[in-house]
Amino acid sequence: MTKKATVEELKTIGKSVLTDIKNVDIPKLVIPMRSTSNLVFDKNNSCYVLGNKTLIRSGGNIRHIKKLAQFLKVAAFCKDLVKGEKRHVTKRELYYISESWGPNLKFNEQPESDDIIEDIEASLSKPSEDIKIIPNPKGAIYGNITLRFKNPKGETMVINCLNTADGQQIGPRTAEAEFVKTDADKVIAIETGGMYNRLIEENAHEKFNAILINLGGQASRSTRRIIKRLNEELKLPVYLFVDSDPFGMHIAMVIKSGSAKSAHINKRLATPPAQWLGVTASDIIQYKLKTDKMRDLDIKRIKELQNDPRYKNNKRLQKELTIWLKLGKKAEQQALLKYGFKFVVEKYLPEKFRELKAPGFR
Amino acid sequence: MTKKATVEELKTIGKSVLTDIKNVDIPKLVIPMRSTSNLVFDKNNSCYVLGNKTLIRSGGNIRHIKKLAQFLKVAAFCKDLVKGEKRHVTKRELYYISESWGPNLKFNEQPESDDIIEDIEASLSKPSEDIKIIPNPKGAIYGNITLRFKNPKGETMVINCLNTADGQQIGPRTAEAEFVKTDADKVIAIETGGMYNRLIEENAHEKFNAILINLGGQASRSTRRIIKRLNEELKLPVYLFVDSDPFGMHIAMVIKSGSAKSAHINKRLATPPAQWLGVTASDIIQYKLKTDKMRDLDIKRIKELQNDPRYKNNKRLQKELTIWLKLGKKAEQQALLKYGFKFVVEKYLPEKFRELKAPGFR
Repeated sequence: MTKKATVEELKTIGKSVLTDIKNVDIPKLVIPMRSTSNLVFDKNNSCYVLGNKTLIRSGGNIRHIKKLAQFLKVAAFCKDLVKGEKRHVTKRELYYISESWGPNLKFNEQPESDDIIEDIEASLSKPSEDIKIIPNPKGAIYGNITLRFKNPKGETMVINCLNTADGQQIGPRTAEAEFVKTDADKVIAIETGGMYNRLIEENAHEKFNAILINLGGQASRSTRRIIKRLNEELKLPVYLFVDSDPFGMHIAMVIKSGSAKSAHINKRLATPPAQWLGVTASDIIQYKLKTDKMRDLDIKRIKELQNDPRYKNNKRLQKELTIWLKLGKKAEQQALLKYGFKFVVEKYLPEKFRELKAPGFR
Repeated sequence: MTKKATVEELKTIGKSVLTDIKNVDIPKLVIPMRSTSNLVFDKNNSCYVLGNKTLIRSGGNIRHIKKLAQFLKVAAFCKDLVKGEKRHVTKRELYYISESWGPNLKFNEQPESDDIIEDIEASLSKPSEDIKIIPNPKGAIYGNITLRFKNPKGETMVINCLNTADGQQIGPRTAEAEFVKTDADKVIAIETGGMYNRLIEENAHEKFNAILINLGGQASRSTRRIIKRLNEELKLPVYLFVDSDPFGMHIAMVIKSGSAKSAHINKRLATPPAQWLGVTASDIIQYKLKTDKMRDLDIKRIKELQNDPRYKNNKRLQKELTIWLKLGKKAEQQALLKYGFKFVVEKYLPEKFRELKAPGFR
C-alpha cells in the first residue's frame, strides 16, 4: 500500500532525529535544496528536476531550530492525516491549524508553512497530495469511466462519470479514486469550460472514445495528477486542447513537463507523453480563424518560451512559436465555432488525431 | 412548459417586426433601457430593477438597422437552441458563431454580441440561460438531492449528488435539472473550495441536513440560478458562508440581491431570502480569529457598501461594516480551523444557525 509506505517514510524521518537525540548527537535533517542553483534540466523527460545539493537544518544552529521543529510537527500532523484516511487539508487550512500549536511552532505567515510543505515534498519525492495536502477542488471529469472511492463516512462508492450531468468535480476523492473500468482509449483535456461543454454536447466522448477533462484554465495539481494517473495506470494517450496563444500552449506544457517551481516533484506530477493538440498557430492560418492582436505580454512570453529548455529542442513547438510571432495574432479555441457546432468534432479533432496518430485515427 | 413559452415570446418579437413590414410600416423594436438612468432600487426585494424607460431600434434609422437585424438574428438562433433542447452556448461561442452570418450580421467585438444578449434578456425579462446562453461550468453541488436531467443524447438520467466523490459540477444540465427528491432542509453555499471540502469531510451535509454548494469565489450565474431554484421550488432556506471581508460579504449580497449590472433580470436570478451567515466582522472578535490587515481596497469597498442601497437599511450589515472599519482587519473562513477540524461543524455553524433561526436550530 502506498499509504503505508508514506507513513513509514514519515516515521523514518522522525526516527532519525530521535536516534540523534538518543546518541546525544545534535539532531538534524538533510533536505534537498530547492533553490534555482540546484535546478537541473532532465532532457529525457524534458522537465526540471532537483540536483544533488542538500541543506541541513541543524538543532545546533539557533536559526534552524524553529524550522526543524516545524518540519517535524507538520510531518507528524500529515502522518496522522494519512493514517486517518478521511481528511485532506488545503495549504491555507494547515497554516491556520498551526495557530493551535503554540507560539514556538505556529506559522506567522502562510509562505512559511508552504515552504515547510515543499521541504517535506522534496524529502519524500512525493507531491503533498500523498500526505493529504490538497488544492481547492476545481475542474471536472466526464466520460465513460467508473471510479471507486470512499465517501467521508468511509463507505465505498462507485460512480460512472457518464452518469453525472456536467461531470464530476475534481477534488481529493476523485483524484485518489480507483479506476475500476473504462472503455475510453484516450483523454482530452480542455482549457475552457465552454469548449468542455461543447464537446459534451457534441457527444465527443462517445465519438472519440474519450474521457473529457475540464481544466478550467491553468490545471490544478489534482487535475494534473488524475491526468498522469489516466496515462500511467490505464496507458491512455493524453491530448491537450487549449487556446492558440503562448499562455494556452504553456498550460499544456505544465501538464506535460511540470513547472520549474515544482521541480522537486515534477516526476510525480508531469505527464511527458501528453501531446499538445492545438489550437496551434498554424491552425489560425489553415482554418482562417478569427484572431485577436497579441498584447506585449504575449510577445514577451513567446520570446521567453523560445529560450525555455522545455521548448528548445522541440521543432514543432519552435515552429509554432515563430508563426505566432510572425502573425502577431492569437485565437481562442471557441473561434472554431465559426464553422458551426459540429465542426470541432467532425473536422478539427479528427484531423488533429490523425496528425498526432491517436488510437483509431492512424 | 417554460420552454414553449420562451419560444412563443421569441416568436412574438419576430412577428411584430413582420407585421410592421406587411403593413408597410417601418419595422422597429421597443427594448427596455439598461443604462444607469433607468436603474430603480426595489426596496421590497432590496435589489436594482429597471424602470419604465425604453429605447427604440428603428429600421428607419441608418444607425439602428444593423443592431435591429442582429437582435432578430440572435433571437432566431436562440429560438432554435431552445427548441433543439440539446445545446447551450457560451457568450463567447455565440460571438464566434456569428462569423458565419455574413458581413452584415457578424459581430466585430464580443461586447457587441454581449450587448444584444442583454437586450434580449431585458425584452423577455428572462436570464440568457432561458435562451440557452450559459456561463462556463464552474462550482459544484453535494448532498442528498436527486436530480433528473437529460444527457447529451437526450436520455433521461437520474443522479443523487451524494453518490459523487467531490460533488457534481454545476453546468447547464445541473442548473436545469429537475429536483426529484431531497431530505435536506437547508442550503449552505460556501465561498472557497477548501471550506466546501472541509464541510464534506466533516459530514456537515448529514449533520445539518444540508445541500452544500461550492461557489468557487464569486458565484457564476448558473450557481445563482440553482440556489434560487432550491429556495423557490423546494422552499429551502439558504445560508451564505463566505470570508470575513467586504468582498466576501458582497459575494453573499450578489446572490441575495443581484448586481446593478444585471438589473434587467435580478428578479429571476436573486434569492432575497438568502442569509449571510458569516464569517462576520463580529466573529473575528468573538472567536479571536487570525486576521490580515485590510488593504486600501478593502476599506474603499467598505465605504462604498455603507452607502449602497442594498446595505443601507440593513442594521446588521451596517453594524458589521462599522466593526470591520474599526478593526482594520479581515479574516478568511479557514481561520476557524485554528480550533481544529471539527470546530466549524460542532460549534461555529450550530451557533450561527441558532442565531439565524435555521430549521432544526430554533
